[in-house]
Amino acid sequence: MSKKSVCIVGSGNWGSAIAKILGKNAKDRSDQFETCVKMWMYEEMVDGRKLTEIVNTEHENVKYLPGVKIPENVVAIPDLIKASEDADILIFVLPHQFVAKTCEQMKGKIKPSAIAVSLIKGVSIDDSGMRMISNVIKEVLEVAQEQFCETTIGCAVNGTGELLKSLFETPYFRCSVVTDQATVELCGALKNIVGIGAGIADGLGHGDNTKAAVIRLGLMEMIKFSEIFIPGSQRATFFESCGISDLVATCHGGRNRMLGEHIVKSDKTVKQLEKELLKGQSFQGPLAAREIFKMLKDKNLTERFPLFVSVHYICLRESQPEEFINCLRNHPEHI
Amino acid sequence: MSKKSVCIVGSGNWGSAIAKILGKNAKDRSDQFETCVKMWMYEEMVDGRKLTEIVNTEHENVKYLPGVKIPENVVAIPDLIKASEDADILIFVLPHQFVAKTCEQMKGKIKPSAIAVSLIKGVSIDDSGMRMISNVIKEVLEVAQEQFCETTIGCAVNGTGELLKSLFETPYFRCSVVTDQATVELCGALKNIVGIGAGIADGLGHGDNTKAAVIRLGLMEMIKFSEIFIPGSQRATFFESCGISDLVATCHGGRNRMLGEHIVKSDKTVKQLEKELLKGQSFQGPLAAREIFKMLKDKNLTERFPLFVSVHYICLRESQPEEFINCLRNHPEHI
Repeated sequence: MSKKSVCIVGSGNWGSAIAKILGKNAKDRSDQFETCVKMWMYEEMVDGRKLTEIVNTEHENVKYLPGVKIPENVVAIPDLIKASEDADILIFVLPHQFVAKTCEQMKGKIKPSAIAVSLIKGVSIDDSGMRMISNVIKEVLEVAQEQFCETTIGCAVNGTGELLKSLFETPYFRCSVVTDQATVELCGALKNIVGIGAGIADGLGHGDNTKAAVIRLGLMEMIKFSEIFIPGSQRATFFESCGISDLVATCHGGRNRMLGEHIVKSDKTVKQLEKELLKGQSFQGPLAAREIFKMLKDKNLTERFPLFVSVHYICLRESQPEEFINCLRNHPEHI
Repeated sequence: MSKKSVCIVGSGNWGSAIAKILGKNAKDRSDQFETCVKMWMYEEMVDGRKLTEIVNTEHENVKYLPGVKIPENVVAIPDLIKASEDADILIFVLPHQFVAKTCEQMKGKIKPSAIAVSLIKGVSIDDSGMRMISNVIKEVLEVAQEQFCETTIGCAVNGTGELLKSLFETPYFRCSVVTDQATVELCGALKNIVGIGAGIADGLGHGDNTKAAVIRLGLMEMIKFSEIFIPGSQRATFFESCGISDLVATCHGGRNRMLGEHIVKSDKTVKQLEKELLKGQSFQGPLAAREIFKMLKDKNLTERFPLFVSVHYICLRESQPEEFINCLRNHPEHI
């Protein structure tokens, strides 16, 4: 097998954290990978110097991940095409909204055989149905600090999953590979809806047992939704880290949990809260809730998913946060 | 069907919280239950008055659950036999260590047809194998505050589970019934071991993703252990509140989580920590870990349960807390 060359498309805090892992693994596993890992970096000036130049000399992304050393074999490149044209493996770690434009620029300029890996969160839906964006890793800052994390690589192509595992896995970042890619991706979107619910329960002053019930009933809806909408979805996938683990983490520490709490404690719209809390970036949970609601509505299934539906209406401010607890009481359990 | 009379054996904070639910339900569902609910109360003096007298006149357990009103149809009785002799349903809510002695006193004095329900946590093992104490409800104080909670009633006898559901369920305390009683009970013991692990991860300064991984890998060991040691154990039981929900709650708010954190942050033995933190009461997790370890050792299975085994050794102070994270890295996943 020829050595695979790796390009990281994106270089924010996530991109930089993952560069730390990929740089080390590419060097250590030089039978499988080219040692030099390219990282496309949107050029900007920091204290009068180019950020790519800083990264390539000081081996630290001083703007987006200060204090974390990036291996020397990771090279920051400001030109997207130069960074990506020779890559066998493209790792996308961009904010959601830049993905389409970036891919448009790369179109026809990259190797036809290149594997694309998405580390981008969320799901987007157009008129033709569901179009998902892979969700492979979470909370990369904990990764950058070498805290123990797990991730699930969803990969439907035989063999490729193992190659990616070899590229990503470290002693503190444990990867498992499943072929049930669609379920892995859907979990990444649905957990954010449940996370808002957990935040609503927190905001209303409920304790650990209520939150645990939200997590359990949310998981039931996630499993049922997958069984209905993804042919061949496997229940075992929910026992992987992309299922239970990511759901639990999202319901305790994620952005969408925080949003739920703010929805209870203020009268502001989600849009206003995005402006205040995320400087105008979007929370993924409300978007997912709206899209999932539409799919359920089309199939006349809203009554079977009271948690998803309730979060959607509360995000729209068409329902009171207190209603969320009511929806749990008569929940039609799914297992 | 004749009306069933109910006796609560125990009257601490848990007993009093559950008295609030049972009193209301017995009154509301008078076609099924005798309205008067008896509560055996160990007599003691509070400010010069008998506690039973205070409860029966002020309808509040001023010593163990101040601020929560107990329905007037709940009657505190200081004599164990008088309280229990006519009962059709006996609800045990006693500290672990008083159960055997109390049952001994009741022997031969109660109705032969009486149903006993245990709300006591933990598992105890004697030489003849595993002897379990049912684990039906958790964190009754949240229940007393009418926060939304879920519980699983494990009941192998047909029909009885539904009667108990009718006795316990309220809009904020949701009960489901499963016949897989042994798994329900085992979950109650095993989750405390995982809870110690979660506390160790917290104490070492790890974040939400590490804790989520502890919960997931702990759940895997719980399921595998049940499959090996309980004939007919069903995986679906782990999707009930006794499985995922109680595990998540224990790993975020329980006593055993707290113990794990203190083990990291001090050099003290579990015994010393029990003296300081619980006024000499026992943490259930270390006891369960020791008993489970013995069972695994006997069957040569310790290598397949690194999380349970690691917690056991750390509780004995025979292994460093840092080793706990190592045990996660090469965990043999079970699903």
